[in-house]
Amino acid sequence: MGFDTNFLDLLASSSPTPGGGSVSALSGTLAAGLTSMVCNLTIGKKKYQEVSEELIGVLQESEELRQRLTHLVNEDSKAFDRVMEAFRLPKETQEEKEVRSHQIENATKGATRVPLEVMEKALRVLELSQVVAGKGNPNSISDAGVAALLAWSAVEGADLNVEINLSSLKDESFVKGARTKCEEIKRRAHAILNEVLPLVRSKV
Amino acid sequence: MGFDTNFLDLLASSSPTPGGGSVSALSGTLAAGLTSMVCNLTIGKKKYQEVSEELIGVLQESEELRQRLTHLVNEDSKAFDRVMEAFRLPKETQEEKEVRSHQIENATKGATRVPLEVMEKALRVLELSQVVAGKGNPNSISDAGVAALLAWSAVEGADLNVEINLSSLKDESFVKGARTKCEEIKRRAHAILNEVLPLVRSKV
Repeated sequence: MGFDTNFLDLLASSSPTPGGGSVSALSGTLAAGLTSMVCNLTIGKKKYQEVSEELIGVLQESEELRQRLTHLVNEDSKAFDRVMEAFRLPKETQEEKEVRSHQIENATKGATRVPLEVMEKALRVLELSQVVAGKGNPNSISDAGVAALLAWSAVEGADLNVEINLSSLKDESFVKGARTKCEEIKRRAHAILNEVLPLVRSKV
Repeated sequence: MGFDTNFLDLLASSSPTPGGGSVSALSGTLAAGLTSMVCNLTIGKKKYQEVSEELIGVLQESEELRQRLTHLVNEDSKAFDRVMEAFRLPKETQEEKEVRSHQIENATKGATRVPLEVMEKALRVLELSQVVAGKGNPNSISDAGVAALLAWSAVEGADLNVEINLSSLKDESFVKGARTKCEEIKRRAHAILNEVLPLVRSKV
């Protein structure tokens, strides 16, 4: 199967990207992949005929989420690199200072939007992992559990990356809006994890 | 940077390996990689001279753990495949039945030992992530937080994989020993996560 160790080596290096933001998105990708796997090990089997149709829908959505989250792994690193570029702009004259400050603010908003989207998408993956934990092939129950754990970690990890960017923004209404969204997503994710894990443990 | 999407495609497919066991090990690998990154972004910088020597030690250990956990990503799939092979052995005669049953028991023990080691190694990564959250470059505090989240998920995810294997084993003393070990590791991991996350949140 051969797992890509280049990404892992680059992660561990002194290069700040890829970092925790990309890894949070990746955690969501892995959760979506496991959710799809449970669907694929359930759909079309006579024993699970009743749930096949529903899980075909789940599979389609988890595959879309997996694709989007895989894209966000790279987007997070790019957005961070753009913030670093803005910091390197000249700041000799008053005009340069203003342009630089404006660019930093804009790039930082961009670097906030990526983990915010990761949170939204990972929350949805968590919801789907709950469906497959309840209705999927019970032989794959531990896979559904790992999916839930990694989707939750993706939500929490991306939230840390939203927070660290918000702390340097000046636009208070943007900050307030983002924070309200994060709190709501985290609250919901925590509630679902606390339902899925006991369900999974009762079945392993 | 290009993340290996082959692994992700194979994960999502109807092939049972790689599955949740491999992904749990991978989660630990990613946590170790982020811990190493925080060390690399701290060591040698004048501002963090005081902690450099300690973090050189942390880096060395987290890199060893990363290497071992990367190896366990594949080992978990191989161990699962060996269980499947044992199930496919002939079971016509009484002797065949006994050989098969013995082989299944042995292969299942092997498939238990891999996630048990993942739990041990990931717990150690979690401990190291706590050190870097406290002493590493504060610009990387969210990376330390994501490392802690993924190390914890690796512990919990691998535990589900230990449990699912233990449930089919006959050797009661093996089962009891493994369960005691898991409980102890999970208890410790939970306690550390509850210390690291508030520390990280106070710094972002």
